[in-house]
Amino acid sequence: MTAKIRLYVDHPLGAGQSVPLNRDQAHYLFAVMRLAAGDCVALFNGRDGEWLAEVAVAGKRGGELAVRAQTRPLQRPPDLWLLFAPIKKARTDFIVEKAAEMGAARIVPVLTEFTNAERIRRDRLRAHAIEAAEQCGGTYVPEVADLTRLDRLLDDWPGNRRLMFCDEAEAGRPMSDADGFGVVPGEAGRPAPGDPWAILIGPEGGFSEPERARLRGLPFAHVATLGPRILRADTAAVAAMTLWQSRFGDWR
Amino acid sequence: MTAKIRLYVDHPLGAGQSVPLNRDQAHYLFAVMRLAAGDCVALFNGRDGEWLAEVAVAGKRGGELAVRAQTRPLQRPPDLWLLFAPIKKARTDFIVEKAAEMGAARIVPVLTEFTNAERIRRDRLRAHAIEAAEQCGGTYVPEVADLTRLDRLLDDWPGNRRLMFCDEAEAGRPMSDADGFGVVPGEAGRPAPGDPWAILIGPEGGFSEPERARLRGLPFAHVATLGPRILRADTAAVAAMTLWQSRFGDWR
Repeated sequence: MTAKIRLYVDHPLGAGQSVPLNRDQAHYLFAVMRLAAGDCVALFNGRDGEWLAEVAVAGKRGGELAVRAQTRPLQRPPDLWLLFAPIKKARTDFIVEKAAEMGAARIVPVLTEFTNAERIRRDRLRAHAIEAAEQCGGTYVPEVADLTRLDRLLDDWPGNRRLMFCDEAEAGRPMSDADGFGVVPGEAGRPAPGDPWAILIGPEGGFSEPERARLRGLPFAHVATLGPRILRADTAAVAAMTLWQSRFGDWR
Repeated sequence: MTAKIRLYVDHPLGAGQSVPLNRDQAHYLFAVMRLAAGDCVALFNGRDGEWLAEVAVAGKRGGELAVRAQTRPLQRPPDLWLLFAPIKKARTDFIVEKAAEMGAARIVPVLTEFTNAERIRRDRLRAHAIEAAEQCGGTYVPEVADLTRLDRLLDDWPGNRRLMFCDEAEAGRPMSDADGFGVVPGEAGRPAPGDPWAILIGPEGGFSEPERARLRGLPFAHVATLGPRILRADTAAVAAMTLWQSRFGDWR
């Protein structure tokens, strides 16, 4: 028996477990997707892998699923954070969706000097990450952090985490090494598989000169060059994650 | 004198040339962006590079620009075609926008067995490509081809053009070589810089078994693996163009 529908639930999953459905979930499964008692759904909660569950009770305002067997173990993405400056609503949603598809473990909206957005709807971004995980067959949902000021984030930076810094001022500079990254500073040495990383995508207005100078001086920062054309922030996010995943992540 | 606004015009560009503006262009420059006589604009037409032009006449329903000097030569992207099966409107627009940003030379919408869209608005897709080129600082606008059946396209395939074929059925297979591409067939040999290429992104429903079998058997086809998660078509397009540009294209 296979399930065509994948659903995220915030509930423990294990053989014999019963999972209650809220009104929205019941509406989606029974009214929109027309499932009935006995039909199957794939469930994941971001922690316990993917499980096959059977509809036990199908109601208008709720229902119950009976968890049968694990179909896939939890597959955590590599230890990659995506840091980005929030932009227009649709493109911010898009970046979160792409971060989940591309396998970021954590999404951190950052406030830079030239960022316009003063606040984000964290619950809405989280909902986009969940929907993307449902679609892309992932068993993990990236964490969405609170909006954080870039300067404070750098003040408290975890020492062993490398930073891939995408700067549109670099557009057109040829890639200077086989990593596809521009500058690999001597102090932190060459990156190795398994290193924790973060990718930082700048805001539409670019970084300020003081920000750029600080970023360039960080011993854990690597400057990435993403070709001769200036990429929009959402394009740059997917491109940077592609380079990283194919070089250090779980695409290898 | 530098220009903050970049505008595509379908008109020859050269020193001393006068460029007439249509109603939409005049509205954008003079009503929306509030330019006046004497202000500067950067122009490109996809053929003659980028030129600095000065507003000579600013009217409500039209106007005239006087072309001064070339600011950048034409920079053609590599000989890369992006083939994709049209999907929902917003995501199709998005793929075209991303193809222009990422540096595809030609965009070819293809009809596969599992493609839903029976027609496309070529003029609308072209407008998206132009807008993306205006934004990303490109001097070239990719050509948008008519919707073409995949089987006919393969019947008439230009012999020396390689095809990078992204198949979601490959999700999870590790990359088998340093190119980040899965299968490099012996017959066509290893790719070299400068080879003409096409990238083929499948439809949401995937390729049919006969399509997949045909694609896999082509001597010029390379199967690409884009990580363990299933990517949406728009994500796959950006990821595949990133891998290609960083390995063979103008990101090197």
